[in-house]
Amino acid sequence: MSKLKTMSMEWTGEEFILIDQRYLPLEEKYVTCKTYEEVAKSIKDMVVRGAPAIGASAAFGYVLGVKEFIGKPEFEEKMKEVKKTLANTRPTAVNLFWALERMEKRLNEIKNEENIVELIEKEALDIAFEDIEANKTMGRFGGELLNDGDTVLTHCNTGSLATVDYGTALGVIRGARDMGKDIKVYADETRPYLQGARLTVWELYKDGFDVTLISDNMAGWVMKQGKINAVIVGADRIAANGDTANKIGTYSVAVLAKEHGIPFYVAAPLSTIDLDTPTGNEIPIEERSHDEVRYCHKSKMVPEEIKVYNPAFDVTPNELITAIITEKGVVRPPYNENLKKLFEK
Amino acid sequence: MSKLKTMSMEWTGEEFILIDQRYLPLEEKYVTCKTYEEVAKSIKDMVVRGAPAIGASAAFGYVLGVKEFIGKPEFEEKMKEVKKTLANTRPTAVNLFWALERMEKRLNEIKNEENIVELIEKEALDIAFEDIEANKTMGRFGGELLNDGDTVLTHCNTGSLATVDYGTALGVIRGARDMGKDIKVYADETRPYLQGARLTVWELYKDGFDVTLISDNMAGWVMKQGKINAVIVGADRIAANGDTANKIGTYSVAVLAKEHGIPFYVAAPLSTIDLDTPTGNEIPIEERSHDEVRYCHKSKMVPEEIKVYNPAFDVTPNELITAIITEKGVVRPPYNENLKKLFEK
Repeated sequence: MSKLKTMSMEWTGEEFILIDQRYLPLEEKYVTCKTYEEVAKSIKDMVVRGAPAIGASAAFGYVLGVKEFIGKPEFEEKMKEVKKTLANTRPTAVNLFWALERMEKRLNEIKNEENIVELIEKEALDIAFEDIEANKTMGRFGGELLNDGDTVLTHCNTGSLATVDYGTALGVIRGARDMGKDIKVYADETRPYLQGARLTVWELYKDGFDVTLISDNMAGWVMKQGKINAVIVGADRIAANGDTANKIGTYSVAVLAKEHGIPFYVAAPLSTIDLDTPTGNEIPIEERSHDEVRYCHKSKMVPEEIKVYNPAFDVTPNELITAIITEKGVVRPPYNENLKKLFEK
Repeated sequence: MSKLKTMSMEWTGEEFILIDQRYLPLEEKYVTCKTYEEVAKSIKDMVVRGAPAIGASAAFGYVLGVKEFIGKPEFEEKMKEVKKTLANTRPTAVNLFWALERMEKRLNEIKNEENIVELIEKEALDIAFEDIEANKTMGRFGGELLNDGDTVLTHCNTGSLATVDYGTALGVIRGARDMGKDIKVYADETRPYLQGARLTVWELYKDGFDVTLISDNMAGWVMKQGKINAVIVGADRIAANGDTANKIGTYSVAVLAKEHGIPFYVAAPLSTIDLDTPTGNEIPIEERSHDEVRYCHKSKMVPEEIKVYNPAFDVTPNELITAIITEKGVVRPPYNENLKKLFEK
């Protein structure tokens, strides 16, 4: 019997099973990890993606490490290796290090207990269930902002597949539905990596939502026709003044929402808010491989000699954001003041 | 010997040959049409696209119809069928209907002449050469609006491949260069059919321009960074009040240009202006196959059961358009008044 089973991951007590996101939505393949090394490889190879999903996966990988080495004389040394191997998979994912630190701290606390395996397993499950709980809380706060019958536009994937379950921006859509509201969704395909087309649309379709896929450049025309009541997106980093870095294309959608008088919401846990970054100007924007643009899905479109620009993120200035939805409540402008208050509660 | 030969099309007197734009830029294939039905199929299947190129193609298709049925008792009836078949290929492109009306009118004028075929062929060639001439004139008028060192954003393909030759929006860019101005270009890839990535970038690269390919959803961010001095697009149909139907995504780009204070120009020949259509609300918007969105270039991305919306065009309201560049000069608001004047000259 599974101790945790969601769309993105399953923990049976013996094995950690991940849906392989590289093949979605055309194929539903699963990767079963019986060792911490298999979990590390799955994170590295992008079987699993999305910061909260990666954090929880690393925690379960850590549990598999404990089970493998417990009782052996080299246990402590081996566990350092386990942590290092799991941490070296995706060196920029903050949740990954946070989850591993927490697991190591817990192991140190319980190392003289008899039921170490049981207790360390509980810690990983706590990380997973806390993530789901935070998303559901965000969903309840955000769900209040939507009306029965609304159609929401979203960009990129911020759903069950990017978290342990339920999602951030998609969690808000689920939250509204859980209140009995009928919510329809338009999903931008989200070029160049197509997370919207490959993941969001599949996830919402599986979950019974009325979801329609559009190309990114249709968003404005769909709004102009009055089809959209609200935009909800996630965030990669939120500066102290509310400026929000998110997947490329988010900024364009925010400008279009303003033009049409449509509320533009960002849904993100407190861990995304970085009070040490004063404004969006200080957020570095990663430029990714040009082949992502030269190819469309798996099909080569233009030859190598064609010049390409491929910023992976953009920054939406705070004045375009109607509200930021967190697990501690809905924050409205002035963000400089109100985001700070979240951390004082 | 060819009577007309450009990048997009060739008329030999017997055959109408089109470069197959569905395979560019990775393959250069050609389609040879010997009957009006083959021309109709080529238009419908998007071997050729772009309003002026479609108009000229339909005219040569009409010539092939005349050659097929001339001297037969059912000639007049058959020519109605030819016109109808060619007209029923693409619903939004007004040039198509304009070219066919002109061909029919000419046929009626010359129906008692001995050299009908020769005269009707001349009419089609006139349409083609007038298009090239109009584009070059448009390029001279529009080229004045650009400054040396400007970077221009364009959407879809409105170049030599979309016209008989030289292009409308790309004709303006060529016009500016022909005046000795250094012009750089950013090209939206233009999902779902990717005319920007496949055609514009290829055509401009071949022509020696400094051109950079971006995904459609990057346009806003590129503007926000101050990289763009002007936007120039083509048009499929311009209503009497200046509202402009053009490739899906044009409207979003126009809103983004307004937000950033960037001039937004439409370049189109008079044949695109339809004074009988009062506003954009009366322009029918073709919805195309959902597989265009389900696939990315040649790669299938989502399964059939996923709902898709695929409007092929959108309408940019006149208030977002800084000026309309035609072969009779640059028109500025109020368009209702000033577009009408063009036809009175």
